[in-house]
Amino acid sequence: MAADLARMLRARRVAVIGASERNPFAASVIRNLDHFGFRGDVQLVNPRGEPVAGRATLRRAGALEGPIDAAFVCVPSDQVIPTVEEAADAGVTGFVVVSSGFAETGADGARAQEQLRALAGRTGVTLLGPNALGFANYVDGVALCALERENRRGSFGIASVSGSVGGYLAKVAHLRGVGLSHMVLAGNEAGTTISDVVDFLVDDPDTRSIGVFLESIYDPHLFASAAERAMRAHKPIVMLKAGASENTARLAMAHTGALVGDDRVFDAVARELGICRVTSYEDMIATAMLLEKTGPRASAGVAMLTISGGSGEIASDLAEPAGVSFPPFSDAIRPELDAIVSGFGQTHNPLDVTGAALRDTGLWERLLKTIAKDEAIGLPLCIWDVPTGAEAAWMAETLASIARGYAGYACVPPVISTVSETVSDYGIQALAEAGIPGAICGLHPAMAALAAHARWSERVLDMRPVQLFAASDAMPASLPRGERALLDWLAVRGVPVTPGVIAGNADAAMFAADAIGYPVALKLAAADVAHKSEIGGVRLGLGDGAAVRAGFDAILNAVPNGVAVDGVVVSPMRDHQIELIVSISRDPVWGLMLALGLGGIWVELLGDSVLLPLPVDGARVVAALHRLKAAPLFAGARGRPPVDLDAVATAVVAIANAALALGPGLTALEINPLAIFADRAEAMDALLV
Amino acid sequence: MAADLARMLRARRVAVIGASERNPFAASVIRNLDHFGFRGDVQLVNPRGEPVAGRATLRRAGALEGPIDAAFVCVPSDQVIPTVEEAADAGVTGFVVVSSGFAETGADGARAQEQLRALAGRTGVTLLGPNALGFANYVDGVALCALERENRRGSFGIASVSGSVGGYLAKVAHLRGVGLSHMVLAGNEAGTTISDVVDFLVDDPDTRSIGVFLESIYDPHLFASAAERAMRAHKPIVMLKAGASENTARLAMAHTGALVGDDRVFDAVARELGICRVTSYEDMIATAMLLEKTGPRASAGVAMLTISGGSGEIASDLAEPAGVSFPPFSDAIRPELDAIVSGFGQTHNPLDVTGAALRDTGLWERLLKTIAKDEAIGLPLCIWDVPTGAEAAWMAETLASIARGYAGYACVPPVISTVSETVSDYGIQALAEAGIPGAICGLHPAMAALAAHARWSERVLDMRPVQLFAASDAMPASLPRGERALLDWLAVRGVPVTPGVIAGNADAAMFAADAIGYPVALKLAAADVAHKSEIGGVRLGLGDGAAVRAGFDAILNAVPNGVAVDGVVVSPMRDHQIELIVSISRDPVWGLMLALGLGGIWVELLGDSVLLPLPVDGARVVAALHRLKAAPLFAGARGRPPVDLDAVATAVVAIANAALALGPGLTALEINPLAIFADRAEAMDALLV
Repeated sequence: MAADLARMLRARRVAVIGASERNPFAASVIRNLDHFGFRGDVQLVNPRGEPVAGRATLRRAGALEGPIDAAFVCVPSDQVIPTVEEAADAGVTGFVVVSSGFAETGADGARAQEQLRALAGRTGVTLLGPNALGFANYVDGVALCALERENRRGSFGIASVSGSVGGYLAKVAHLRGVGLSHMVLAGNEAGTTISDVVDFLVDDPDTRSIGVFLESIYDPHLFASAAERAMRAHKPIVMLKAGASENTARLAMAHTGALVGDDRVFDAVARELGICRVTSYEDMIATAMLLEKTGPRASAGVAMLTISGGSGEIASDLAEPAGVSFPPFSDAIRPELDAIVSGFGQTHNPLDVTGAALRDTGLWERLLKTIAKDEAIGLPLCIWDVPTGAEAAWMAETLASIARGYAGYACVPPVISTVSETVSDYGIQALAEAGIPGAICGLHPAMAALAAHARWSERVLDMRPVQLFAASDAMPASLPRGERALLDWLAVRGVPVTPGVIAGNADAAMFAADAIGYPVALKLAAADVAHKSEIGGVRLGLGDGAAVRAGFDAILNAVPNGVAVDGVVVSPMRDHQIELIVSISRDPVWGLMLALGLGGIWVELLGDSVLLPLPVDGARVVAALHRLKAAPLFAGARGRPPVDLDAVATAVVAIANAALALGPGLTALEINPLAIFADRAEAMDALLV
Repeated sequence: MAADLARMLRARRVAVIGASERNPFAASVIRNLDHFGFRGDVQLVNPRGEPVAGRATLRRAGALEGPIDAAFVCVPSDQVIPTVEEAADAGVTGFVVVSSGFAETGADGARAQEQLRALAGRTGVTLLGPNALGFANYVDGVALCALERENRRGSFGIASVSGSVGGYLAKVAHLRGVGLSHMVLAGNEAGTTISDVVDFLVDDPDTRSIGVFLESIYDPHLFASAAERAMRAHKPIVMLKAGASENTARLAMAHTGALVGDDRVFDAVARELGICRVTSYEDMIATAMLLEKTGPRASAGVAMLTISGGSGEIASDLAEPAGVSFPPFSDAIRPELDAIVSGFGQTHNPLDVTGAALRDTGLWERLLKTIAKDEAIGLPLCIWDVPTGAEAAWMAETLASIARGYAGYACVPPVISTVSETVSDYGIQALAEAGIPGAICGLHPAMAALAAHARWSERVLDMRPVQLFAASDAMPASLPRGERALLDWLAVRGVPVTPGVIAGNADAAMFAADAIGYPVALKLAAADVAHKSEIGGVRLGLGDGAAVRAGFDAILNAVPNGVAVDGVVVSPMRDHQIELIVSISRDPVWGLMLALGLGGIWVELLGDSVLLPLPVDGARVVAALHRLKAAPLFAGARGRPPVDLDAVATAVVAIANAALALGPGLTALEINPLAIFADRAEAMDALLV
């Protein structure tokens, strides 16, 4: 946890310790201070007292005149700790340590890093790094940053562990005309973590959207609470998190020693936190831009207008796999649209305004105002390239027409520039004059941004509090032992289970079968036998009392000597449609996670499962089931009746709540299968770890 | 078919018919001629004989002095035909018709377009358009083009139906430092089709890679033959074909009246033709650049070197879903690699060269030369940003080191610039000086290009001739009637089929069952009954003669009155592992196509099938089966023994050849299922349309 990150990032008095003419880090930091127009006090420390960049220097960190809010430390790694200690005594309250040679180099470095962290904790100073390139505060004009980039001031804040990735994000932001509020490059995160930086940026009034690059989240509770506040404030957090692939997980381990964790768990966490995950620098900038400028949209449908029919087709082809919906325009507005485009086009979505819009720039406004009446459209977008300075007057007229057309909408979105290109100062100015808040460059990033926008909008508008880190404090007197006992225990907690009776002898089994109704199944009840069918411990479809008696005897005969037997469970045969696997397990970082999937090929070959952090409610379970590839089966595919998903969800929620009631000792609870009938669900087998 | 497209595209004498000061098309064309430095004769026609752009004009097309290789026609649509007629008489042999109002407007326009096409055919002139923006020939300095773009001369040729899309492709090419040889914007393709343009570009010595945008292919035979020559010449054809989504198919119909066809069929055709399909402008330019500069690679593995560990991770995350392989470096070279990176890094792939490569630029060369000895690596790539003019000397040193490192490879590939940005003239020059043939901008386009490169390389290096348009001339004396007859007919042609005997009475059925061995299946043989199991026409698992007799009688009793019955088929029960659907059907454009998929959910819910144009051989069938999502089932997933795919492929090839032997009357032949056992396959049911 950072002691006082805000004070450091808004420093008024700074120092560079280890400054010399030959140190490229120091040279960059000093140039950056000038470049940012830093007006406060700057003190330099050089061990020989030589002037650096024409400025006088002090020989020792202990000679610094405090208070100093932030010092950039670029001394050899073995001198970092004594230097910080000395400087802290002299009144320095914040440190950026660029020196490498810590945890990223192995065990010795990790020990040194732990000492540095402890020192910071003891002295109460704020520490960014080690192995950190620093920070740049575009709002207040402060930079202690070894990365020199040309960037405009704006409202996009960057938090990156990697200096180079932070630099690339800043570069793309600049290329696309997106200005920055802050850039913080956190390195090894010994003191200040990315969670601290995000926490700061969420509360920073000048930051309206946040871009994050990381491999691992070191302070998940702080991160989650910051993300929840960001949702309430409609501040999008867009994240590039490395490690989706196995190869990358290995790379990250080699790179910073980070354990990237289970990427699918993090996906579920990100969904819960309203975090938008992207896969490229370009998609991050496009997504942050779109979400910041338009806010959440109430309807999923997007309307798109373009002068290039071919580009509309390419966008539409990209939209379908991305999950972006361009719904047909509603019948209510179609006559009005038809009247506008008659003679040159048709009213499909995306809408091809054709060359007619070059002669009649007012077309955009008229079309947009008509489409505003279509309730299925949550967001209107125009493909219109950013002016570069060489265009005719109708370029500006078109932008103005588009801006007027947005009068009926809740937001004024950016335009979509057809290709990924550089937005010049001229273009930014032209957009601003028209009242358009920027441009997303490239159809591909635009589709990624639209897909993220839909998911983010749904989560943000939901308004329910974040539910993560579930770990019940309940301590059940005794954990149920044996599968049947576990099912009975679940039944008491409201989980529908297949009825079953443990019979101690063949007569009891027959009586039970008579009561249950034939045909029945018999299954060995013996807690120590894991795979009962393999030893002949299961008999199915027994049609009468004689068969039950024979089955009972056969099962007992099959039991190996010395195995404790509780009896034989008699239960009805079931003719269910679908088998669901419901599995709850504990993620070391994020707490209990619920996994839902269909058995057989769906999970084994297709990896088709969804994850939800606990606790859950029925609506979230239903929504999650709809995200399965197998979802068409619930709707009655392959000639079966549709399934009552509410009934399934009720059973799943009961299972999840039972898992919570099992207390902190629970590692995993698996219901396999939860048998799904048309109108109900029933746990058939259960396993507890 | 274009009469003499080359003559038109390399015109030495040109005309603009319909030139006026107020016509923006004419103004653009005239400016473009100047801009391209056209040295030949230019004649202008203006109906009032007014000077245009300071040049004298003729009053009538008939007054033009032939021979003229290319005339740009920008007259109202109703004057196009008389104008072309008059100009052709005067000696004009090629026409670009920009006028719109033809097939894209409906039936009347389509009739006018047909008249224009007939006129071109009758007079033997070359026609580009109507509704075409024209062409620009960067090699010879000729442009009759209403689209004005800034582009460098180079070796990338563009063929696009859409003027705006062609313009966007040219724009991205320019932004990425890729020069053009030709740009041809074909409009409605009444005369010159995109196939003609591709045919020209494949043979054009100055064109080394080709980018195509279209909705529909109008001259598939010409297109296929050009694509085959392109493969032999290692000239990549990269295509954006709209219409992958249903919505886009509707848009294309509205846009140009094009029927986009079955996108999955075209995917199979593209694979056969070595065409690389991409989904964005940026991916097209990146793909064309990579394939043109490096040629096909013999090994699928890619090595990547980067100074940004984070970017390597992001690239690696993108690679996995794209199907790009960064294999671990082989044990043979690892000690040598370890020796180079010891002290600062690890030898993962992508390889993080870290900041050490800033101090020691020779690292790149040493690493690349070592990696060249790894046989699993088919292509080495370095992430290194294009110089912009502001960098230090080590930027150029690094490029030179990279170029020297490529000495041991078959190719010198472009560098990968981390983000999608603009490559300046300075950057192009700096790359050229180092001996690097360009840059791919952005990790996302780079991964798309690498994935395309792998597929293209495999196809190009395969060298087998293109097989498309299969439609046998065979005329069988009589088509087999009834399912059993069809199976027997297939068996004669080498298809393994489940044996079966048609029994006319219960005794015959019993004798047959005795011979086959119990248990057996009985199935009604009646050509006019489609769904035999629904009327009780199928009995399975009959264990003895009595059951066969009872089954026979029950089946005959179930037959509705008046239905012609051939008897009952007796066949053995089978215990196969997997059921494959093998379906052959005729695509109206591309001929007979073979579809392979597993039944049930695989095709119905997951759309999991692969398509191959006929004829096929065993190796291609095996490769296609591996592309199924269900492929793990063949390898013995879920506890089953692995399947002998060669045996499956032999059966599939026999089915395909039998379909070819069925002659031109065949619409569809479906084997459902082809039962797959561990060591063989067997057609159980067959249907002929």
